[in-house]
Amino acid sequence: MSAPETRFAEVQGGGSLILAWQIRGKRVVVVGGGEVAAGRILNCLNADALVTVICPSSGLNAEVAYRVSQSQVQHVDRKFEPSDLDSGVDMVLVAVDDPDASSAIWRLCKEKKIPANIADVPPECDFYFGSVHRDGPLQIMVSTNGKGPRLASTIRKHIAASLPKNAGRAIEVIGLLRAKLREVAPRPEDGPRRMKWMTRVSDAYGWEEMCALSEEDMAHLLRFYAIDEVPPMDTLKLLSAGGDPQKLDVFDGSFGFSVGA
Amino acid sequence: MSAPETRFAEVQGGGSLILAWQIRGKRVVVVGGGEVAAGRILNCLNADALVTVICPSSGLNAEVAYRVSQSQVQHVDRKFEPSDLDSGVDMVLVAVDDPDASSAIWRLCKEKKIPANIADVPPECDFYFGSVHRDGPLQIMVSTNGKGPRLASTIRKHIAASLPKNAGRAIEVIGLLRAKLREVAPRPEDGPRRMKWMTRVSDAYGWEEMCALSEEDMAHLLRFYAIDEVPPMDTLKLLSAGGDPQKLDVFDGSFGFSVGA
Repeated sequence: MSAPETRFAEVQGGGSLILAWQIRGKRVVVVGGGEVAAGRILNCLNADALVTVICPSSGLNAEVAYRVSQSQVQHVDRKFEPSDLDSGVDMVLVAVDDPDASSAIWRLCKEKKIPANIADVPPECDFYFGSVHRDGPLQIMVSTNGKGPRLASTIRKHIAASLPKNAGRAIEVIGLLRAKLREVAPRPEDGPRRMKWMTRVSDAYGWEEMCALSEEDMAHLLRFYAIDEVPPMDTLKLLSAGGDPQKLDVFDGSFGFSVGA
Repeated sequence: MSAPETRFAEVQGGGSLILAWQIRGKRVVVVGGGEVAAGRILNCLNADALVTVICPSSGLNAEVAYRVSQSQVQHVDRKFEPSDLDSGVDMVLVAVDDPDASSAIWRLCKEKKIPANIADVPPECDFYFGSVHRDGPLQIMVSTNGKGPRLASTIRKHIAASLPKNAGRAIEVIGLLRAKLREVAPRPEDGPRRMKWMTRVSDAYGWEEMCALSEEDMAHLLRFYAIDEVPPMDTLKLLSAGGDPQKLDVFDGSFGFSVGA
């Protein structure tokens, strides 16, 4: 009778639900213009949000002032007013040294069902931030669930140092290959086969190899989808170098290639 | 005139806003009972959410059926109905093979301003999931922003293998030390000094050393907060081993110790 208990992962409570929130083109209001606000603003801009900073000019630090001057964000040059949340705000981030004002904004957000984060006030947060490593499409977020923010940053640096160089580039390439594959085999019912083949490609090549895939290599690689095979990287490179397919092992039948199939 | 442009981090668009969502005690509705739903459910349980699974019993896979049988989740044994969102739902996760039904739920969620994720339909997602490594309080999430889910999982495994053993334990210890420090120095105005000292502690010791800190070591360590110093680990271990403080370098003034200060 004990088998069922051990077949599935044990619940390990006490964590957060780590999510990649989509805020491209969404309206984010940042209240405050200090160092914490500057970090939040950059996070949001890196995710293509439309950011409005609400803070008297005198309270903007150099970075926030720079973002304003470059029109990277909209700026409302005064303190927060409740009407600031009247027109379709998707997220609110508060970073001001005024607990009462912060709490009032939090309550307003909850009334309006707007996700919000009041910096340094965990009970007034729908979500926390963590330490994020970014390399192109790759994002790695380290959270210690509030127990060790400094360690989170140390661990993030450790991870960044241990990743293969160009991991982000490898992911770009895989994304590109996936897009090209959808052109070659566009039917929705091919989805599972596409996914399976992409998995084999991901498993077959190292990251460095993936980074080094040229457009031509990809074109050759995609030909192997038809025969549901993934060739060794050497074969691809030979094909791209102008090697005669007839003289390559790949076309001697070892991949089950059948002309006209 | 070009200095301002280079002083601050360049915006690197195209990412997501990676967040540690807080759903402890919040109500999450999962529509569907297959493999994807099972993964979502575990994610939510690991973050202490109150999960309701809406799916006919015949559609539950073994893992979801197990969670239901163990009362880890509530189960509504039928298909989704709009009234399911009438009573304070905080998040909706849909994983059913029915695009029309999924889209209808998505629209309902947007009407009600409930954050939602429709699996495999990126435009109908307020957020995506990623590949998460978990070790106690430590959570590391890898997102490729949809470009290479398989690589995300590979990178997660690479990271898990490269982390020091017991990284999670080290974070527990730091969290505990921070809590004890707040008892020693509880005044809110001590916050910045507490933070600064904790940072020095985090920087001074390796992860393995951190993991090996006993309660007694911590008690000795906390005495150094008063003189705003962080002793070498050897010193702590000597103190815990019953070494005579008078005979240790630490009390010869090298730490600026002043009796009665």
